[in-house]
Amino acid sequence: MHRADYDLAMLLKYENVAWYEDGKVRILDRRVYPIKTEYVVCETYGQVARAIADMVTQSGGPYTAASMGMALAAYEGASLAEDKFIAHMTNAAHTLANARPTTAKNMALITERAMNVVRNELLAGRSGRTVVDAVFSDNIDRLNEHYTRYEKTGEHLCDLIPGNGVAMTQCFAETVVGMLLRALRNRKSGGNVKFICPETRPYYQGARLTASVIRDMGFDVTVISDNMPAAVMKAKNVDIFTSAADVICMDGHIVNKTGTFQIALAAKHWGIPYFVTGTPNRQHPTIDTVTIEQRDPALVLESMGLKHTLPGVAGYYPAFDITPPKFCDGVVTDKGVFSCYDLMRYF
Amino acid sequence: MHRADYDLAMLLKYENVAWYEDGKVRILDRRVYPIKTEYVVCETYGQVARAIADMVTQSGGPYTAASMGMALAAYEGASLAEDKFIAHMTNAAHTLANARPTTAKNMALITERAMNVVRNELLAGRSGRTVVDAVFSDNIDRLNEHYTRYEKTGEHLCDLIPGNGVAMTQCFAETVVGMLLRALRNRKSGGNVKFICPETRPYYQGARLTASVIRDMGFDVTVISDNMPAAVMKAKNVDIFTSAADVICMDGHIVNKTGTFQIALAAKHWGIPYFVTGTPNRQHPTIDTVTIEQRDPALVLESMGLKHTLPGVAGYYPAFDITPPKFCDGVVTDKGVFSCYDLMRYF
Repeated sequence: MHRADYDLAMLLKYENVAWYEDGKVRILDRRVYPIKTEYVVCETYGQVARAIADMVTQSGGPYTAASMGMALAAYEGASLAEDKFIAHMTNAAHTLANARPTTAKNMALITERAMNVVRNELLAGRSGRTVVDAVFSDNIDRLNEHYTRYEKTGEHLCDLIPGNGVAMTQCFAETVVGMLLRALRNRKSGGNVKFICPETRPYYQGARLTASVIRDMGFDVTVISDNMPAAVMKAKNVDIFTSAADVICMDGHIVNKTGTFQIALAAKHWGIPYFVTGTPNRQHPTIDTVTIEQRDPALVLESMGLKHTLPGVAGYYPAFDITPPKFCDGVVTDKGVFSCYDLMRYF
Repeated sequence: MHRADYDLAMLLKYENVAWYEDGKVRILDRRVYPIKTEYVVCETYGQVARAIADMVTQSGGPYTAASMGMALAAYEGASLAEDKFIAHMTNAAHTLANARPTTAKNMALITERAMNVVRNELLAGRSGRTVVDAVFSDNIDRLNEHYTRYEKTGEHLCDLIPGNGVAMTQCFAETVVGMLLRALRNRKSGGNVKFICPETRPYYQGARLTASVIRDMGFDVTVISDNMPAAVMKAKNVDIFTSAADVICMDGHIVNKTGTFQIALAAKHWGIPYFVTGTPNRQHPTIDTVTIEQRDPALVLESMGLKHTLPGVAGYYPAFDITPPKFCDGVVTDKGVFSCYDLMRYF
């Protein structure tokens, strides 16, 4: 199966950030996109895990990278005897799932899915390259399920945005953004929505990724710095704030890129609804089960690689923050919109 | 009179950002400090106004630059006949005061003060270099008054910070920061205060200027990105949020660097007090008298000179935001702390 099998070329440009082919996983380096379009090429699953930890990709990217990494692991171990191959794949699954702590439980679902494929293949007496192909093929199935789910999510989110309204985003909601924009373009009237994207320091995902997708799809988009959302909501008559989430706990707490909480707080102040997109996460019954990942503090002491603080000045960089359910007006899923206080209903 | 006349060498390093000498005004280029220590050298008052508009200096810097610019204007016009000299100086006062719209009324107080010196000198029959010296000398008097006032302000702010507490800042409060730190160092106990500085995009004044002063004076300082204050207030047990202000309206509205409003909003959410330092401004009886300066939108589409957005993506850059009085717990002045709802009492 090849890239050409996809008809969502527009989305793939941003979404299909990792690809297994011929013993290599190529990952689009989102740290430099759109100024440069470069790929990190991984020849071992360990390099894939390293790339995930190093933020080569983010949002949904790590999940695709991890599943492609499992195909690479199968390639690496193709000549091993069955017991050694299983041990090798188990190591790979653990390493890839734990590349970033906050999302480890979600990532484990991906790597466990690949492990099931591996086990079924071995049970059926297949080995070597055939197993690699099976793992890769299942990745494609998973991506298609993902696209289908997020296509519906994007349509539900579209229904919540007022005609020709103004929407504020946070970080990069990836597939959902693309699907939302497509739904807006297909809208009979009022599809001329304007977007405001906080830049999302220190990686500038809002400026580099979200704004690029929106612009590429022909919508009006304005980037602001992360200290502006509260003031700009009023100045630009923002109608809705929306973000994706790294984890949506069953108790309604939302874990997403640092900054989401204070934008949600400002939205509440102005009476603007905040809708989060994603899937409630049964691996996280409460917020207490979430570990907030701490990233390298040096990253907030520099910008695009240029340091701008004196020696001795410390940094602090929690990758995510927590938005309590009272600041969120609903979880937009493939099955519709759910209250943060009633997420079991999703299942 | 020379630099050596100051005993506040520590403060001057950051504060004395503009200096007239021998027909030139040298302005410390805060856009690149502390990575580079460079000066913009102005040979005409027009160049000084340009430098102010271009953000070579900010916070209190433009006031010093404007008053030094008036000395330069006197030098430029030293050989003019009296009526032409007065016209020349009036033009200079207007140009310098209006270099940045939001603070034009405050700046006019500075340039008008210089004009009074000029008029008195001419009435006394003096001209040429003597007038230049008189304008410069009055600048020094003004700076000394300024230091004295902010020394008291810093002491009052010091009294509001809990022993060994944690204070969050916004942008660069300049002299007040230096005076506060000095007061904390002199405190008998509990002076070991920690500071958290949001970086203040797009110019990074918090990271580059505030954090540098705090670190230089031996305090613990941590820089965070502008999307973190709300979450970090809780994670780091912040006790107080404080900022300076570009304008404190008599109706209690505070105009300060974009971002102040949403930090104040977060502080209110967590029950953390917000104290603003400065002087209530009778030129601005209400917030309706303030023009919020719009700066070049391209500045939010780049970082340290590197662009990180696609062509066609717009930017929006209001230099300031407005914090309503209900989010501010008090105005800290040289005369003590005043309620935002009772600012006439200051006078």
